[in-house]
Amino acid sequence: MLWEIYILVPRLSLSFTSPTSYISPIFISNNNIKEMVKRIAIIGSGNWGSAIARIIGQTTSQHKDTFDSHVKMWVYEEIVNGEKLSEVINQRHENVKYLPGKKIPENVVAVTDLVETCKDADFLIFVVPHQFVGGLCKQLKGNIKSDAQGISMIKGLALNTGAKSGINLITDEIKSILNIKCSVLMGANLAHEVAEDQFCEATIGYNGTNPEEEIILKKLFHTDSFRISVVKDANTVELCGALKNVVAIAAGISDGLGYGDNTKAAIIRLGLMEITKFAERYYPPSNLKTFFQSCGVADLVTTCYGGRNRKLGMAFAKSDKDIKTLEKEMLNGQSAQGVYTAEELREMLKQNNAEADFPLFIGVDKVCKKEIKPKELIEYLKNHPEHD
Amino acid sequence: MLWEIYILVPRLSLSFTSPTSYISPIFISNNNIKEMVKRIAIIGSGNWGSAIARIIGQTTSQHKDTFDSHVKMWVYEEIVNGEKLSEVINQRHENVKYLPGKKIPENVVAVTDLVETCKDADFLIFVVPHQFVGGLCKQLKGNIKSDAQGISMIKGLALNTGAKSGINLITDEIKSILNIKCSVLMGANLAHEVAEDQFCEATIGYNGTNPEEEIILKKLFHTDSFRISVVKDANTVELCGALKNVVAIAAGISDGLGYGDNTKAAIIRLGLMEITKFAERYYPPSNLKTFFQSCGVADLVTTCYGGRNRKLGMAFAKSDKDIKTLEKEMLNGQSAQGVYTAEELREMLKQNNAEADFPLFIGVDKVCKKEIKPKELIEYLKNHPEHD
Repeated sequence: MLWEIYILVPRLSLSFTSPTSYISPIFISNNNIKEMVKRIAIIGSGNWGSAIARIIGQTTSQHKDTFDSHVKMWVYEEIVNGEKLSEVINQRHENVKYLPGKKIPENVVAVTDLVETCKDADFLIFVVPHQFVGGLCKQLKGNIKSDAQGISMIKGLALNTGAKSGINLITDEIKSILNIKCSVLMGANLAHEVAEDQFCEATIGYNGTNPEEEIILKKLFHTDSFRISVVKDANTVELCGALKNVVAIAAGISDGLGYGDNTKAAIIRLGLMEITKFAERYYPPSNLKTFFQSCGVADLVTTCYGGRNRKLGMAFAKSDKDIKTLEKEMLNGQSAQGVYTAEELREMLKQNNAEADFPLFIGVDKVCKKEIKPKELIEYLKNHPEHD
Repeated sequence: MLWEIYILVPRLSLSFTSPTSYISPIFISNNNIKEMVKRIAIIGSGNWGSAIARIIGQTTSQHKDTFDSHVKMWVYEEIVNGEKLSEVINQRHENVKYLPGKKIPENVVAVTDLVETCKDADFLIFVVPHQFVGGLCKQLKGNIKSDAQGISMIKGLALNTGAKSGINLITDEIKSILNIKCSVLMGANLAHEVAEDQFCEATIGYNGTNPEEEIILKKLFHTDSFRISVVKDANTVELCGALKNVVAIAAGISDGLGYGDNTKAAIIRLGLMEITKFAERYYPPSNLKTFFQSCGVADLVTTCYGGRNRKLGMAFAKSDKDIKTLEKEMLNGQSAQGVYTAEELREMLKQNNAEADFPLFIGVDKVCKKEIKPKELIEYLKNHPEHD
């Protein structure tokens, strides 16, 4: 049998509604259709993974001409209330441990075998804690399609384990192990609000040159409530997601010391200036406009007002306990990523003899290590090179 | 008698500490010294005026080679607890009505005659509610030094009363009536926190070409706690200060409807995009970097989390009352500037057939006028042209 299907001919702009787009009918056989649609694998099924699975389930069902709506989600098997988590997800379509009360579409199927999840996939969505990325990629090496692409949703940095210590982008780690392209999705996206279909935005950073791929990436995530912009500046998008956590610790310290809105605004702004300087200097070219996307100012602001890094910074400024103790007491097993990112940044900036240019990044690490008192961080910032 | 004084020879950059600056001794007589130093007049003595008077009193005493430390502050005379406000300020050095508990330096002298305050001044600092600017300038016309300069600290827009209705910058109103240059100072500056000497930043927008003037402007406001950057993009600085209030009403509406951090972050970002688009389109050239100053993202964020426009927007979304009623009930005689700015913007955008490009600005006016329900504003924003 022959299918008549309609292809939206790609344009350079990403608007789906512009009159310059046009629909072109083509005729194609049953088998070829199966080959053309893109298969998606979600690697991870925590809070954020489950929230994004709700979106991917929806978009792949909605765009069957573009995606195989049978989506596999890799689940690290756990026993929850005497049941296997993967079985609970496949039977009751809910991740009762990490996203209770929210329906995961039935076309998303939990799989516990990582290679089985990914072997046929065209797009691998990475949404796991950043320390697991290396290990998972090593398992996948040689077991995925040669033209597969990655999409990282992980906000953090990897420690460079090569000859030169310092930091690495998570996407660089994925790319180097798997030898594939890798985009990123970042934004002001608290998982439980995304799962409630509250209006929010996200930014995809894509560095390829294929306009069709851009459209596919946008289609894969864009829903009525979750609004996507695609920018060709993936490194900046990823850096925004990682570095904001350091700024949030400084914002929390200011809150904990009892300073008001002006001081916090100054800290957020100076943090933003350090993020831009870092991106421009160490990952050029970086487009200033990218910082106006959801991954930039929006995520930074949200994190500095509501995130767990800010919460930890605030508690730290108010107490005599050390960071590790507070992390255990307050974050229920989760880590405050900004603490580790600040440490890694300082190491790298020291090697580059650039500590004086980034007083906020450096100051946060010094406070966390109790080398200076929280209040001294504010003095550091009063003399920020931005004010010269 | 001859004085030996030292002049810091101005450079193009604003750093005071850079080794490329150099000190040059010159010799000058007693009388000439008096002529060289700049005299400052502060027009206004409310909450913000009194807070800035604390700073001006400090900087003019500190830099006697640059400023006359005898600073006049125009006070609109009121009787407070049976005493004249001007006399209280001059005797007890405290504005007991608008900034109680905070010392105003003794070198700042309250004067109730506007022309007397300003006639000898080189710099006129405007810090009054925006609706009084026109009337005050008319009183000053012909009664000030011909080379005097204005500095506006007023966050708002003026209604154009000429043939073409629409909006005007406050500085344009000052410039056109007094025929003087006018800079602006804007930033994330809640007055009571500035008066407590909490660390904060501000941005001066200066459009002149004289590097010495830039240095003088910075010197006039820059203290250990109040940190100044000067940018040559005064219109953008002023627009940031005025337009943020509209975004804050939208942020308040989102809070009032019970939406979370993601939605609020999206609203703040989309608002920022409309502010940049407005500045670039109607007041070019506008430098994208200016939005990274305190007047830009920092002030926007502070206002959207803590200001009275946000508070009013939140109450409005939760109640059946109209804006005027809520303003009376909640703001103790003050107005929520964003409501009026949104109305003026809509009128102007309508004339320019550009309403579709600014759904947030237009939507806020529609909500305030009860043409649409608060919830519909969120739907407007989901379909923002930014997402195309």
